[in-house]
Amino acid sequence: MSTLKTEIANLLPQVRSRVPLVHHITNYVTVNDCANMTLAVGASPVMADSIHEVKDMVSIASALVINTGTLNEATVASMRVAAKQAKAKGIPLVLDPVGAGATPYRTETVHQLLQQASVSVIRGNLSEIKVLAGLDEQTRGVDAATVFDAGSNRQAMQVFVKDMARKLNAVIAITGAVDVISDGMRVCFIENGRPEMSRVTGTGCMCSSLVGAFLSVTDDAFLAAVAAVACMGIAGEIAHDNLQKQEGNASYRNRIIDAVYNLTADQVTEKGRLKW
Amino acid sequence: MSTLKTEIANLLPQVRSRVPLVHHITNYVTVNDCANMTLAVGASPVMADSIHEVKDMVSIASALVINTGTLNEATVASMRVAAKQAKAKGIPLVLDPVGAGATPYRTETVHQLLQQASVSVIRGNLSEIKVLAGLDEQTRGVDAATVFDAGSNRQAMQVFVKDMARKLNAVIAITGAVDVISDGMRVCFIENGRPEMSRVTGTGCMCSSLVGAFLSVTDDAFLAAVAAVACMGIAGEIAHDNLQKQEGNASYRNRIIDAVYNLTADQVTEKGRLKW
Amino acid sequence: MSTLKTEIANLLPQVRSRVPLVHHITNYVTVNDCANMTLAVGASPVMADSIHEVKDMVSIASALVINTGTLNEATVASMRVAAKQAKAKGIPLVLDPVGAGATPYRTETVHQLLQQASVSVIRGNLSEIKVLAGLDEQTRGVDAATVFDAGSNRQAMQVFVKDMARKLNAVIAITGAVDVISDGMRVCFIENGRPEMSRVTGTGCMCSSLVGAFLSVTDDAFLAAVAAVACMGIAGEIAHDNLQKQEGNASYRNRIIDAVYNLTADQVTEKGRLKW
Repeated sequence: MSTLKTEIANLLPQVRSRVPLVHHITNYVTVNDCANMTLAVGASPVMADSIHEVKDMVSIASALVINTGTLNEATVASMRVAAKQAKAKGIPLVLDPVGAGATPYRTETVHQLLQQASVSVIRGNLSEIKVLAGLDEQTRGVDAATVFDAGSNRQAMQVFVKDMARKLNAVIAITGAVDVISDGMRVCFIENGRPEMSRVTGTGCMCSSLVGAFLSVTDDAFLAAVAAVACMGIAGEIAHDNLQKQEGNASYRNRIIDAVYNLTADQVTEKGRLKW
Repeated sequence: MSTLKTEIANLLPQVRSRVPLVHHITNYVTVNDCANMTLAVGASPVMADSIHEVKDMVSIASALVINTGTLNEATVASMRVAAKQAKAKGIPLVLDPVGAGATPYRTETVHQLLQQASVSVIRGNLSEIKVLAGLDEQTRGVDAATVFDAGSNRQAMQVFVKDMARKLNAVIAITGAVDVISDGMRVCFIENGRPEMSRVTGTGCMCSSLVGAFLSVTDDAFLAAVAAVACMGIAGEIAHDNLQKQEGNASYRNRIIDAVYNLTADQVTEKGRLKW
Repeated sequence: MSTLKTEIANLLPQVRSRVPLVHHITNYVTVNDCANMTLAVGASPVMADSIHEVKDMVSIASALVINTGTLNEATVASMRVAAKQAKAKGIPLVLDPVGAGATPYRTETVHQLLQQASVSVIRGNLSEIKVLAGLDEQTRGVDAATVFDAGSNRQAMQVFVKDMARKLNAVIAITGAVDVISDGMRVCFIENGRPEMSRVTGTGCMCSSLVGAFLSVTDDAFLAAVAAVACMGIAGEIAHDNLQKQEGNASYRNRIIDAVYNLTADQVTEKGRLKW
């Protein structure tokens, strides 16, 4: 356990020294927060979604983050081209299937991307991941709370996430009250974070940006996902401690990004609550 | 009067207990603030504007907010489809005619939407609302200050807003130094708010998001609009009181959202300055 | 020197008294910050990028800002129409060639705009400006750090920026550790700012918005660019002084905008470190 924490803590200074370029094709709701979060962790963000340039842009990036928060025909076409190029170039891809299950269009788009792309990490909430599995789960919008009973039924969750990782041939990171991550072999539960994070738009998206940053400095996608999810949860706790009187979700958003900006490897080691 | 205040104050806990899904087709300038404001009041935001999914998305939502801040062909087409579906399903629609009058494209788009849709509440500044009325008013950009003399000439304003509500068959909420709201029968003036709110981009858009949230928990669109506009104004006052030394409009934006996050029904009752 | 500082300091109250409308066709990543920055300096922002309205919108604006941060076919077409109309109407145009050099699409788009438009000010980092000059410079994403040795080799930089300004027939503002601005005759180095500003997304974009605001109140584009870049750098310093414990890049973003909101002409005079 302490080995895993040390390994993920050590990824943080690596991101900061390498400053990897993380290409995002993402939604217009939380894109600014994703950019600042990418900068906070020490990487460099670039957002580009025109079909005329995504192939070129992904080619100079260290990782690609595809987020389906606000899809349209043009960006879906660009996602396909970018994902194909990432596969050809061996550039790791993070998929954040925002709202999968909420509409057929989102669900189909995500399924098609999964068929065509080589995805390193899929990060979503339980309901989105269930949709990827073809399970019958009605997603209620993209920020809908999902009953995540990883706490009460970890064994079932462990089986589910491992199966999902094998079936989808990707590291699966399910974030919620308790996060669970698997590459089909290893499983890690992360108990960091705060319930108030669900009242801030884009915490999931920002977490996916962190996955992109960490994927840029390690070939072990499981480690990258664990590092990202742990950092996000720890930052959520630190930021909550830093909240001043009268502050709410807007200030909390800023303080979460600030906490990642100031996060040290030692804090990750000290505060990380990882179970496997 | 105290009855009205009590009624609107009581809507706040209802939003928080039901967590309604509010679908937005909105501009890319203030969309993140609208999402965090929707979360602040206790509702759940979803932003989706592809023609391939807006019909599905609006069908699972409790309210639809259409904001014309940054129009294009694709989003205008989606607005029409979404508005039509909202009408068919009986889902309340808020129209925020940002910049109506600034360009013929905006004015025509808004007029067409009004013809095709069943709008519950139209929220705008005086100049935008005058354009909807076909009055000759040159809008000077979307954030332009408008001389709003509701303070000095309330009787004329009362007649105007009632006429507008009847003519457009919708609750009209005109926000400015003094806000005025009417459903064609009832008229309410709201004296909350701060002039500094006009130096924050998106306060109008965020107010429209609040209208969507309140429309999700009451069939009385007049009450929903009064509640939203009152909450926004009160939050603007609280946030201004909370400003620290050296803070300006960016911090004020965060503190306004924070104030809604922490707003209580009691505060609405105590601080609301409603006249009718 | 003191004359130049006085002149640029005097532009600030002029913006605040005239409240000019600044039309932006810009990226969806930093657009909200650009809007709040425009409001902070005392101008009024409008963002509109549909080909159906940009001609009308630019016609009622005092300045146009074109930013290539997230290009697509539709917005590039709108940029051309808007730039043409700005030229026809004599409305000053700021070009922010974000990411020029990162992809052929960006580079070609920027070159085409330069051929067709009458550009008052081009603001970018050294690598972007070199691409405009046709020099062989590989841009590494839009937020990439660029070795800017204006400090160590000011004479070479002075020659370069003057040549660029003459060649491109526009005021050139190269921002970095030390900023340098020229209209082909005059050259000004600005030593304000903080290295931490590069960890906030959109500081360059916001600076271009400020150029647009200042261009609205003076015919001397060189002065406008110097004023904008100086205000941005000074605000970056003030904001850094105002950072509280545990704050990072997200709070820094807000404090930079806040600092411009509270900036006085006296502060510009006192804190400006201009060399020419």
